[in-house]
Amino acid sequence: MRTVEVCLSPQLLPLYNLENKLVVVVDILRATSCMTTAIAHGVKEIIPVASVEDCRDLQQKGFLAAAERDGIKIEGFDLDNSPFSYMHQSLEGKIIAVTTTNGTQVITQSKHAAQLVVGSFLNEKALLDYILNQSLDIVIACAGWKGKSNLEDSLFAGSLVYSLKRYCTIDCDAACMVEQMYHSVKDNKLSFLEKSSHVNRLKKLNIRKDIEFCLQVGLYDVVPVLSKGDKIVNSSHLLFLKESSPLMK
Amino acid sequence: MRTVEVCLSPQLLPLYNLENKLVVVVDILRATSCMTTAIAHGVKEIIPVASVEDCRDLQQKGFLAAAERDGIKIEGFDLDNSPFSYMHQSLEGKIIAVTTTNGTQVITQSKHAAQLVVGSFLNEKALLDYILNQSLDIVIACAGWKGKSNLEDSLFAGSLVYSLKRYCTIDCDAACMVEQMYHSVKDNKLSFLEKSSHVNRLKKLNIRKDIEFCLQVGLYDVVPVLSKGDKIVNSSHLLFLKESSPLMK
Repeated sequence: MRTVEVCLSPQLLPLYNLENKLVVVVDILRATSCMTTAIAHGVKEIIPVASVEDCRDLQQKGFLAAAERDGIKIEGFDLDNSPFSYMHQSLEGKIIAVTTTNGTQVITQSKHAAQLVVGSFLNEKALLDYILNQSLDIVIACAGWKGKSNLEDSLFAGSLVYSLKRYCTIDCDAACMVEQMYHSVKDNKLSFLEKSSHVNRLKKLNIRKDIEFCLQVGLYDVVPVLSKGDKIVNSSHLLFLKESSPLMK
Repeated sequence: MRTVEVCLSPQLLPLYNLENKLVVVVDILRATSCMTTAIAHGVKEIIPVASVEDCRDLQQKGFLAAAERDGIKIEGFDLDNSPFSYMHQSLEGKIIAVTTTNGTQVITQSKHAAQLVVGSFLNEKALLDYILNQSLDIVIACAGWKGKSNLEDSLFAGSLVYSLKRYCTIDCDAACMVEQMYHSVKDNKLSFLEKSSHVNRLKKLNIRKDIEFCLQVGLYDVVPVLSKGDKIVNSSHLLFLKESSPLMK
């Protein structure tokens, strides 16, 4: 039986063997919710980078670029970290370089995984279907907040474990913890998250609308995946490429 | 209002500012349960050390010594890591050097805290009274298992947060998580812990009796505290010393 593990913080990632794993990166508020939204709205590629400098370099090479630190857009960049910024028709077919406080750090730390997919409540159903169609063991990697775990990512991890436990073995205490937590608050997610330090931090930034948007389950039928270690694309697009490649004929 | 935070893994301790804090070290199975038991049964001092070598050095200097790795006593040492080993009358007044896989590591990492106390279900009530009589902000430091978080330490942390939340502000998502988890399983602790990887690991070592013992709440009315950064003693003994010291007169 496949296994599912949960890593509660990027600081703990070195303790997990990712090489033969399917890694689900989670940064609900707001990096992976934005990426899901962008891919669902036709963005062609997202290039996740760890530093603001790398992001600026890509911007200077002509890419659109989004850089956020501490929840705030850095001056001089094209896009912020709100999912509503990724719905514009003008972004269809475009490539966007992105760096965020937590989410893109986890992606760059997990590039050596056998597969890396982007998870959020927004694409939870599609993600679950996708995972169940694979055979690799699973690590759910939470971005947290500056190295510490956070409620919203842990809650999503718990939700995924809750759905996967019929199909997978849970040999990981962190997975048991978040699953139990999710199970006990699943009917009151929003009021539970009101306790979150990051939610309160974001509220001060006046983005309650973003938070409510990011908590919607299964809004988008897409699974963003890391391709060739450096860009995030729509998994169905990747499948199409594979099927039409000479090797597949 | 005082604050309470929870650190789920020793790997995350560097993210917490311990200098002005009261740190509660937690390693339910079994280091802090053993220390509580030992102090309750009259052991005079426990010297926690990080390495087996340091423990052996102290043994050679004439101290009693306990060394455990991966749940198993290392050959040549006097005591193992079962609470039942610390109840013998012959240990009264003795000094014991101890090293364990996880618990003593957290203690040596937290020596710079303003205060360090040892927590377990066994002394939970006395610990709570002790904490409420202090004024420092609190960090509950879970030992976990080899860097990862574990169910039993998180559950105890959740129990403490649950009791403290009337008196403290919780500005820490990890504290919210474990408190929610504890709240939802508090009437079925043992069956919940059956899911724990460490409990299952220990079961293979045939120590179910130890596990059941360590989950008893409030059995002992003692609070072991770190004194002068290098030895753990009974807090009431320390208080007596302070009161009778020249400075207190």
